Amino acid sequence: MNISKKCAATAILFICCLTSMAQQALFGGNEIVSPEINQDGTVTFRLFAPNASQVQVTGDFLPNVKVDSPFGEIEQPQIIDLQKVDGVWTYTTPTALSPELYSYKFKVDGLDYLDPSNVYMCRDIASYTNIFIVSNKKDDTGYLYSVNDVPHGNVSKVWYESPTLNMNRRMTVYTPAGYEKGGKYPTLYLLHGAGGDEEAWVSLGRAAQIFDNLIAEGKIEPMVVVMTNGNTNSEAAPGEWSKGMYKPSFMGHMNPAPAASMEDSFMDVVNYVESNYNVYTDKQHRAISGLSMGGGHSFSISKQYPELFDYVGLFSAAVSLKNNFRLEETANPQVDADPVVAQQLKTLFDGNPKLYWIAIGNTDFLYPANETYRNYLDSKGYKYEYVETDGGHIWRNWRLYLTDFTQKLFK
Amino acid sequence: MNISKKCAATAILFICCLTSMAQQALFGGNEIVSPEINQDGTVTFRLFAPNASQVQVTGDFLPNVKVDSPFGEIEQPQIIDLQKVDGVWTYTTPTALSPELYSYKFKVDGLDYLDPSNVYMCRDIASYTNIFIVSNKKDDTGYLYSVNDVPHGNVSKVWYESPTLNMNRRMTVYTPAGYEKGGKYPTLYLLHGAGGDEEAWVSLGRAAQIFDNLIAEGKIEPMVVVMTNGNTNSEAAPGEWSKGMYKPSFMGHMNPAPAASMEDSFMDVVNYVESNYNVYTDKQHRAISGLSMGGGHSFSISKQYPELFDYVGLFSAAVSLKNNFRLEETANPQVDADPVVAQQLKTLFDGNPKLYWIAIGNTDFLYPANETYRNYLDSKGYKYEYVETDGGHIWRNWRLYLTDFTQKLFK
Repeated sequence: MNISKKCAATAILFICCLTSMAQQALFGGNEIVSPEINQDGTVTFRLFAPNASQVQVTGDFLPNVKVDSPFGEIEQPQIIDLQKVDGVWTYTTPTALSPELYSYKFKVDGLDYLDPSNVYMCRDIASYTNIFIVSNKKDDTGYLYSVNDVPHGNVSKVWYESPTLNMNRRMTVYTPAGYEKGGKYPTLYLLHGAGGDEEAWVSLGRAAQIFDNLIAEGKIEPMVVVMTNGNTNSEAAPGEWSKGMYKPSFMGHMNPAPAASMEDSFMDVVNYVESNYNVYTDKQHRAISGLSMGGGHSFSISKQYPELFDYVGLFSAAVSLKNNFRLEETANPQVDADPVVAQQLKTLFDGNPKLYWIAIGNTDFLYPANETYRNYLDSKGYKYEYVETDGGHIWRNWRLYLTDFTQKLFK
Repeated sequence: MNISKKCAATAILFICCLTSMAQQALFGGNEIVSPEINQDGTVTFRLFAPNASQVQVTGDFLPNVKVDSPFGEIEQPQIIDLQKVDGVWTYTTPTALSPELYSYKFKVDGLDYLDPSNVYMCRDIASYTNIFIVSNKKDDTGYLYSVNDVPHGNVSKVWYESPTLNMNRRMTVYTPAGYEKGGKYPTLYLLHGAGGDEEAWVSLGRAAQIFDNLIAEGKIEPMVVVMTNGNTNSEAAPGEWSKGMYKPSFMGHMNPAPAASMEDSFMDVVNYVESNYNVYTDKQHRAISGLSMGGGHSFSISKQYPELFDYVGLFSAAVSLKNNFRLEETANPQVDADPVVAQQLKTLFDGNPKLYWIAIGNTDFLYPANETYRNYLDSKGYKYEYVETDGGHIWRNWRLYLTDFTQKLFK
């Protein structure tokens, strides 16, 4: 082999090493496309696995089915067998999927398996799933979650000093398109759930796309969006701070015990944002919302600092009339409010916030907690808006709630 | 089942659904730790796959071996069989690994398989590998690539207008810790290779960690680092622009043909950065460097705009004395320089850049191209520094080159 041929061969191999699909194509295999959104709106999943005995797919594009578990009968997405032809396992949905961001994964001989033909995946706490988006027309849900040909805001990973926690901490900040050109903006503080971190809302939450698209349509005010890390025992998302590469967990925010709560350290965030960004610093231009644990934080921060926010959004929130949220109490619709909580809520609602917005799915495990809380608000005559959707404690709902809530802000 | 028990069960299931490891632990399986860096410096890989017939691991922590391929004998990392005990497949390296960031993946019955116990992975073009870092002491290579307890710079995904390409385009900008407090900074433009994008240097390149750590040690000047997207037919990384979710490829930057080259559109980047950041705007405070294709861009941009940069770094660069880089020409050590290229290089070196730095591995497929280029520089008496390392066209080298090069800047 002369040197010229050797170089050409090396170059081709180099390309092969870099892209496994190229390698597969070069060595006689097929270029696998998966998932493929077909003309008729159905979706085809494919996996090249000639030696596998069984390949399945599961995900939130499939209907829930009841299955047995150690806790009794539960619901989970159906698991579908793919069919093998020439080493390629295939499944096509029987009908078109409606516009949405979907998550899925394969199971190969029983093992969870990420689709190697799809580079798009999201981490939800400690596990990954592939994602795809179905959008049929402008303004549908899938369109809102897609990157479209509109001006884009910047997304920054920002370190700030938290004197209360004696830590440098990381947050994600969205600044709308045109922010650099000047002007002053309102601020939304947008909080994640247990097990999440400052990356959750911009990955599975598609927050940057939702804001870009709604701003471009003129449906929401351009705003700065501050996505904090609600685990006050941590500086940042897993792998992004000096405690090494650890596996995140649902209860990771409690172990080790944090030096102070999200509530007690929250003014560090506000002070940093209002010192470093071109934002208004009055109640009319501040909003707070969050999902699950972050909904609980939004609930408690808004009452702890009643002068701060004119807009509060509780998405599937872990709310409690006691000082601490305890799931077992949520079943009791008659729970008495802790006097401190009652007084804080009175002060908050006496201040006439412009919007106090509660949303939850009708099968959410936090539904009873929210029902108890709404009963209390009703009994006191406190004004709020309430949205009830189908479904449970899932990102699909939280993206919808964000889309709805933000259109009501700063008007 | 009464409502209280139902809630508790739902909550536990909710937790299970969120963390597959929790589910495994709850349902009687073992909590798998993988990879585990042991006290003696060896590393253990584990995979729970009771039904698999064969589980293997491969990665750059293993020595290369020669294997047959359609192109003749090539080198690739060894593939090692794991041993099964109680459904858990295990492999422990026979000796301690030296400090480094390593990539690996499993193969389960022949299929590439990402380690479900390790949430840390990087995308390299269209494929993912898991990563882990070995660091034994402060200042070793692994330490430099780790997030340590030092002040952190911010990393932003920034959209800028490129009039030359008639596009909004995305870049990654690192601003050093303390940037918000004022002061002026020098700028490094840091460019990726073919198949990469504006995310490459901060993922596999560990650029933010390298800068944080070297700045904290006082080894480099605090600087703004601008990581562009060198695919001028694209706005942004895959999934981050409006052309939908497509699979990136090594030659993706050429198809469709871009409206203008990286070189011809580069002043759009400089103009945006120098209008929007607190940076110096003179030659002494600007540097450019890149790897592979980005090294080629650094080579050609620095000669096309000879007044712009006092510091140029070519890492495994696709350099050519012709107007366009053609791999097949790189084998010819006697290639004549194109007259335009010769004139541009003369102007560049007549301007006495403070540092013209070339680095490459001795088995890199671009070694001949760089040898040809160095011969030319030598023949003209143009001053440059040259570093030759072991190894080929790999991130391990590019992280080392970045670490070395940046310590020579702006002094």
